[in-house]
Amino acid sequence: MFKLKGFKPDWTNEPPPNGTYRSIFKWGAPDMFKHPNHRLYAMIKKEFLMTDADFEKKQYQGNEPVKVETPLRLAGQQVEQFIQIVGRENVSLDDYSRTKYASGKTMEEAMQLRRGIAGEVADLVVHPRSKEDVCKIVIYCNEQKIPVYVYGGGSSVNLGFKPVKGGITLVMNTHMNRVLSFNETNQTITVEPGIMGPAYENMLNNAPDFFNAKRRYTGGHFPQSFEYSSVGGWIVTLGSGQQSSYYGDMYDIVLSQEYVTPAGSFKTYDYPATATGPKVNDIMKGSEGAFGVLVNATLKIFRYMPENRRKFALMFSTWADAVSAAREISQAEFGMPSVFRISDPEETDVALKLYGIEGTVIDRLISLKGFKPMERCLCIGHTEGEKGFTKNVKKKVKRICRQHGAMYITGYPVKSWEHGRYTDPYMREDLNDFGIMIDTLESGVTWDKLHNLHQGVRTYIKSRPNTICMTHASHFYPQGTNLYFIFMARMNDLNEYKNFQEGVIDQIQKHGGSLSHHHGVGKMIAPWMEDHLGTVQMDVLRALKSHFDPHNIMNPGGTLYLDTPEPEKRFVT
Amino acid sequence: MFKLKGFKPDWTNEPPPNGTYRSIFKWGAPDMFKHPNHRLYAMIKKEFLMTDADFEKKQYQGNEPVKVETPLRLAGQQVEQFIQIVGRENVSLDDYSRTKYASGKTMEEAMQLRRGIAGEVADLVVHPRSKEDVCKIVIYCNEQKIPVYVYGGGSSVNLGFKPVKGGITLVMNTHMNRVLSFNETNQTITVEPGIMGPAYENMLNNAPDFFNAKRRYTGGHFPQSFEYSSVGGWIVTLGSGQQSSYYGDMYDIVLSQEYVTPAGSFKTYDYPATATGPKVNDIMKGSEGAFGVLVNATLKIFRYMPENRRKFALMFSTWADAVSAAREISQAEFGMPSVFRISDPEETDVALKLYGIEGTVIDRLISLKGFKPMERCLCIGHTEGEKGFTKNVKKKVKRICRQHGAMYITGYPVKSWEHGRYTDPYMREDLNDFGIMIDTLESGVTWDKLHNLHQGVRTYIKSRPNTICMTHASHFYPQGTNLYFIFMARMNDLNEYKNFQEGVIDQIQKHGGSLSHHHGVGKMIAPWMEDHLGTVQMDVLRALKSHFDPHNIMNPGGTLYLDTPEPEKRFVT
Repeated sequence: MFKLKGFKPDWTNEPPPNGTYRSIFKWGAPDMFKHPNHRLYAMIKKEFLMTDADFEKKQYQGNEPVKVETPLRLAGQQVEQFIQIVGRENVSLDDYSRTKYASGKTMEEAMQLRRGIAGEVADLVVHPRSKEDVCKIVIYCNEQKIPVYVYGGGSSVNLGFKPVKGGITLVMNTHMNRVLSFNETNQTITVEPGIMGPAYENMLNNAPDFFNAKRRYTGGHFPQSFEYSSVGGWIVTLGSGQQSSYYGDMYDIVLSQEYVTPAGSFKTYDYPATATGPKVNDIMKGSEGAFGVLVNATLKIFRYMPENRRKFALMFSTWADAVSAAREISQAEFGMPSVFRISDPEETDVALKLYGIEGTVIDRLISLKGFKPMERCLCIGHTEGEKGFTKNVKKKVKRICRQHGAMYITGYPVKSWEHGRYTDPYMREDLNDFGIMIDTLESGVTWDKLHNLHQGVRTYIKSRPNTICMTHASHFYPQGTNLYFIFMARMNDLNEYKNFQEGVIDQIQKHGGSLSHHHGVGKMIAPWMEDHLGTVQMDVLRALKSHFDPHNIMNPGGTLYLDTPEPEKRFVT
Repeated sequence: MFKLKGFKPDWTNEPPPNGTYRSIFKWGAPDMFKHPNHRLYAMIKKEFLMTDADFEKKQYQGNEPVKVETPLRLAGQQVEQFIQIVGRENVSLDDYSRTKYASGKTMEEAMQLRRGIAGEVADLVVHPRSKEDVCKIVIYCNEQKIPVYVYGGGSSVNLGFKPVKGGITLVMNTHMNRVLSFNETNQTITVEPGIMGPAYENMLNNAPDFFNAKRRYTGGHFPQSFEYSSVGGWIVTLGSGQQSSYYGDMYDIVLSQEYVTPAGSFKTYDYPATATGPKVNDIMKGSEGAFGVLVNATLKIFRYMPENRRKFALMFSTWADAVSAAREISQAEFGMPSVFRISDPEETDVALKLYGIEGTVIDRLISLKGFKPMERCLCIGHTEGEKGFTKNVKKKVKRICRQHGAMYITGYPVKSWEHGRYTDPYMREDLNDFGIMIDTLESGVTWDKLHNLHQGVRTYIKSRPNTICMTHASHFYPQGTNLYFIFMARMNDLNEYKNFQEGVIDQIQKHGGSLSHHHGVGKMIAPWMEDHLGTVQMDVLRALKSHFDPHNIMNPGGTLYLDTPEPEKRFVT
């Protein structure tokens, strides 16, 4: 076993006490931890000009019990009405529930919760049992003008369900997490929105046991939040998983949906294709709770064939080479790898530490062959699909990468990545404990603007001294890709952080990137929406909002910029 | 050369005289003809209980000069205004133009025009030169409440642009048919909506000459109307081409669009993916001119690699086998063939005649092997894409078909199909000349409802004595396919035809098919929309309509059922 030499920070290894702020903002399972390895720790100290002494004392751990100052703004009669609809056991008024179901996973919320600030909370937390419950609730709230927020898995990174106007929060994963039907002929499954990623995928993988199916299936959707996000959340935020280059994103995967809105309930058809005018089914995707409540969805499923999966990893000399090869792969029409990811030089440097490649034979070989640190770029991936298909994809990927000067470095880095694909977010708590901020923003971009966007955002982030900026592209299309920016700095002041983050969004907007590629917009990025889409297009979204929700009770207070007050508007261009 | 024995009808071989009704309803090029071959002619006589004598005299040929009874409903000042905007040479008031640009290609219109009935026509035909012209026109028409219809290529089969409320018709293919930009890096092209299929495809195929590109490209969209339809028409009607199983339909292919609407003009972004709320870009697709005028669009293009194309044809024992194999192919994840088509027994019977297979060695071999007429089903297709990909697709298609009892019958039938893929519609005039109606309706359907829909519609059509009903599936998805119904009968009465056609649509709706798979809805199928989508979803479309077009000037009079009078509503279920 490898033994650490010298000082090692006292990373937290205890589940947070029940009822505390920390139990809310901590990522994932209470008793699960992942700490920075010694190479990462060394890098952090170096980059942020820190010493072991800076890692002796944790700050703002949020171990205090949650306390809410906001008084209940609902009348007793109104509370009674909700109890009548869903049963007393499915209504919560306590401070802890109100805070927990008001909180997502933004850096901003973590910083606040660590300081004992609960922020805006709903008055009441309601756990609906069925579509019928949701119907009654929405009708009643519409009558009484009570705001309705919806909590899926709670992993929002943009204040998506933040109950800024109070009212009630519907928690979908308590009861409304069932499979309603499974259709092997059509390769579809119909589920309630609160079903969580692992439960969903597990049933599909084991469809012969659960549904008496002939085959095993997969949902094909694996965002980094997979373990702690819900199918409904994936849909209403336009999520895109790490294997979307092959399986498509949620916009592609969802075949039909049923919604309860103040303007009525409806279920769209599950036709594989139709030409009957603008598609209401698609209009609802990405509506982020502002039009109505998703009560069930029918999704495409795919054959689960892990035996055909083929892994690969390559090292490029430069980012330009990696991008050129990725574009050729995306346009060459042999099908796409499922996981496919190219890291820029700074991320490559960190990845080699994170994946345990630094110091290995592979590492020495890469260096020997002349791939220089802070120039070289890592590419990892794996294929999915029928056997002959995956074989051909891997062969062509390798060929194209080599034509762009890349060196094949075995499947080992992919295995390391797979191992950590859902657990890396656990490290945030360790970093935050010692005043280090880590956050991400992502953007969709066409090939011709990619370098401009990458440079523009990097220049801004790196203009702040001692700040790490790692970038990768991980979702590929013939017309472009996404850029995923991860930035880290020693930064412990909420205002400083907010200003910095706003600056990054400004740069994305200025350099021709989409405001969001797969995290949705929420209330955090909404102020840029009018500048981004333009008033005429925003008016279309506002017209839909007025139609579905004339009293503005559905996720009010800034979602998608539908009702943001004018002064909060942010103009960049 | 093969020489016909016996009687041969005097099929029309002369271009219709200028200015006549026939010159309007005749399909395609004035001097292009395709006549039924002797086997088809023999079949027609047999099926419809006709003799050579019935083919001696043509009826209702529509060779009379067009005459319009509808008076001009615009004031002189209004006409002057349009002249001022686009120039006198771009405004037409004559009877012929008013009728030509009011007419699509429905059976109903053909029957009327043959009888000298021009039907509803616009007051004025306007040929805008640019986006700026369209802007001025829409602003003026909105002020003056003048209806605006848009004519693309004129191939609508559902009264899509029928100017039932008069006003003006904008003809897009006169001037607004240019390529605005070509982006090889992103693999996109930006065009005006009036560009016609062949011009579009030709420029892409020859991109090195036209755009100084490194490669040749294809648009990947080949509807049967390809030669006489426009890119803009494909988009606003949600068209789907014969190679959509590989390239996707227009909903997939269109990356961004610019529209002029009474509520303002806007251009959507060309991001390859974005998560910034409901997609206005997609809301506009399929809006059939009811929200605004499409003035340009950016489309995905694909590499043109005909050298990798691999053809195949197979014969199945039964329709059930053909459907099962097609489903397996669509779900097996090796990629899809580009052209892929299975014909039911009745269509197979006709196809063998039409493609010249009847009486050949292949035909004898099929029969010898026990594939029985009116049971056996033809499957044809070809692949597209990278070399290793197409090779694998063909191999897997053949393997799966054989596992379902099919016999490989070479690529010959595909070549015959390719030869006739755009020319078969020319035969309609010959049939109509002798009082034989031929028409089509199509529907999207999930696999689990396919047989029910096929049987339901067939039973209805075949319940009429001496009526041919041919069906194929030609657009494949993992979740289902389309069914394309072609029906033929000796029928020359407009009311009888209308009743019969309405009955077919009723059956589609009753048996779980989509009202339209790729022809759009227009004013013909609109009366079924409310029953089909339900009032809550129709209200969403109506809310969008009110937003974009508060004075109802854009394609008014029944498009998508947005403003159809209540009594015309058709309820089936």
